[in-house]
Amino acid sequence: MISQDFKSMLERKSVIRNFAEYAARRGREIGYENVFDYSLGNPSVPVPDSYKDAVFRLYSTLPSAALHGYSPTLGNPNYKKAVADSLTRRFDVPYTPELIFPTSGAAGAIAHACRAVVRPGEEVLCFAPFFPEYREYINRTGAVLRVVPANTENFQINFDAFESMIREKTAAVLINFPNNPSGVVLSEETMIHLADLLRAKQEEYGHEIFLLSDEPYREILFDGKKCPYPAAYYDNTLTCYSFSKCLSLPGERIGYVAVCPRAKDADVLVPMMGQISRGIGHNCPASTAQLAVAEVIDQTADMSVYETNMNLLYDKLTELGFEMVRPGGTFYIFPKALEEDAVSFCRKALKYDLILVPSDSFGVPGYFRMAYCIDTEKVKRSIPVLETFVHTEYPDR
Amino acid sequence: MISQDFKSMLERKSVIRNFAEYAARRGREIGYENVFDYSLGNPSVPVPDSYKDAVFRLYSTLPSAALHGYSPTLGNPNYKKAVADSLTRRFDVPYTPELIFPTSGAAGAIAHACRAVVRPGEEVLCFAPFFPEYREYINRTGAVLRVVPANTENFQINFDAFESMIREKTAAVLINFPNNPSGVVLSEETMIHLADLLRAKQEEYGHEIFLLSDEPYREILFDGKKCPYPAAYYDNTLTCYSFSKCLSLPGERIGYVAVCPRAKDADVLVPMMGQISRGIGHNCPASTAQLAVAEVIDQTADMSVYETNMNLLYDKLTELGFEMVRPGGTFYIFPKALEEDAVSFCRKALKYDLILVPSDSFGVPGYFRMAYCIDTEKVKRSIPVLETFVHTEYPDR
Repeated sequence: MISQDFKSMLERKSVIRNFAEYAARRGREIGYENVFDYSLGNPSVPVPDSYKDAVFRLYSTLPSAALHGYSPTLGNPNYKKAVADSLTRRFDVPYTPELIFPTSGAAGAIAHACRAVVRPGEEVLCFAPFFPEYREYINRTGAVLRVVPANTENFQINFDAFESMIREKTAAVLINFPNNPSGVVLSEETMIHLADLLRAKQEEYGHEIFLLSDEPYREILFDGKKCPYPAAYYDNTLTCYSFSKCLSLPGERIGYVAVCPRAKDADVLVPMMGQISRGIGHNCPASTAQLAVAEVIDQTADMSVYETNMNLLYDKLTELGFEMVRPGGTFYIFPKALEEDAVSFCRKALKYDLILVPSDSFGVPGYFRMAYCIDTEKVKRSIPVLETFVHTEYPDR
Repeated sequence: MISQDFKSMLERKSVIRNFAEYAARRGREIGYENVFDYSLGNPSVPVPDSYKDAVFRLYSTLPSAALHGYSPTLGNPNYKKAVADSLTRRFDVPYTPELIFPTSGAAGAIAHACRAVVRPGEEVLCFAPFFPEYREYINRTGAVLRVVPANTENFQINFDAFESMIREKTAAVLINFPNNPSGVVLSEETMIHLADLLRAKQEEYGHEIFLLSDEPYREILFDGKKCPYPAAYYDNTLTCYSFSKCLSLPGERIGYVAVCPRAKDADVLVPMMGQISRGIGHNCPASTAQLAVAEVIDQTADMSVYETNMNLLYDKLTELGFEMVRPGGTFYIFPKALEEDAVSFCRKALKYDLILVPSDSFGVPGYFRMAYCIDTEKVKRSIPVLETFVHTEYPDR
């Protein structure tokens, strides 16, 4: 019988999607270049030429079966080795290829990691603000996602709330820094505190608490900042990554889970994820993408535009009196709305063809997200529009 | 906590995999060209040049964001349209793009289709012999796979057994013709009988019974045979397809579910599959693959080698006294073993470096599968080896 469960989901459209669809409709009316669409996190810079070159080279040198044949169940060895070597070199955690499981982007990585270390009925904690899709990724594994309220002072971690929410059935904690939607990076102090607390709680409950670290924005950092690499601080870490943002190829659906070599049962987790794939019906990312990414592993698209855009917006928003934490990375900024109801605020912005996303679905009311992965030229054109919006709608500020 | 469920799966290695791993090990000892490896269904012919040309053309004409950007949630429109038009043209069922859901091969298609129309606890029936991975695809959705015993006379459908097994909680029936492992194609008579019976049972129980039709071998047919297209005979059909075999690109992981326009709730099933993807953590096949397949939609790799190989093997096996049904398609043949215990039979063959797969995991004891997607030259070299094996091990036949 048709699943009423999935059918009923169709009626609950995501807020982000509603605003994005409005932007697309409005674009058809007045020309998309005239819509200041800050709704979607779709990378705007091109894939690096080296990726394209790698694809062409693979097509001209490899026999068809080597390029397009089935990947081994646990992934292409070249890709696994390239990822392991790169992580080891960059973060000084001694990965081997056996600890890398190729996935369909970060979504696939979280789905696999969660099924491997969380049992149905157990709980996964995450911190507001958080990417709303986490709810689906986690709840569909049979586990329950519980959201720790935000630390709105700096969008690091609200440790008081967190500590009160960890309990016996907490099997994992899901973090995301640099963060979507706030752009905040994890401070080393926060990371150390988090790791200490998790170790203490593991001891207290007598079982592992895994850290699922979702890091698709790891390579997009501003002001020369660094973001600590969680697996270097906490052994039971499964790093979930996607090349979508750093190589600008979200449609190719390629990422991985990296199991920390010091994690409990590290040697069986990747083979277990191979078994999980069978039930999910997903066996590895595309073979060509695995082989091509392996060849350009430490390269990135030219992401300087994101920092340029961030600076333009941060300066103007500050000048207009918005409160916000200066983003340390990503291509998001997350200011406080000028009225309590962020949905009402974002609705008013629509009159100016400014597409902003209210923060409610990110687990924090009263803020809005701007995704500035768009041309700088458009960001510049949006500045006077932002000014008019604020001065007209909120004249008393 | 670590999932004992998935961990314990690691100890239960598949029989096919054991034989394939033996073949690989033996290949390292004596040279793989000397191992007559009939164990794996990995297409041996190259991807057609037109596919390669399409990829190059896309890279040189499309902007990066159009080629590598996120696919819309329900898939790339060009791909959906190409598939819908092709199916309509070829099978006279009026598909529209909205009825096509792109998936990660046929495995992803079955996983999505099953979650859409079967609720946890309900039953899916399939017919022996069957592809052993079905058990994982189906059971992990929360449904239960029940296997209808084989009709060993011709490997069509054992209708007596089938009828006795359909019951109130039968939500779907999974078929696979041309069949892996038997190579048998569905006769039109069988298809009509099946459709009539399902319609009668739908009426009797007052609910839909969906037909999940797994058709990755649809384009590999011998002797000018045709295989009926199930959705043309039965409305509640979800066609599950993969381009792995017809285009020789299993590693690219691209397929689809096509919802029959006359199916119950046809208009919501694809959007539901979009929701299912969120929980599975898999969003669409690779964008480049979707776009490239759209451009070569009705083309295939040169698959004539499979028919050549089939004829060589069928003739020799017949001459050696094996009983079997002549394959109508695929790249498999499924003869009766020369002793009751097929595992023992296949173990004896190993001494001759003949890698055959015993039938037990396909749900029928006493047979063996040969996957002849290998070079014809190797098939020819294997013929005297087959003779020696049979004459030496079974001299009294």
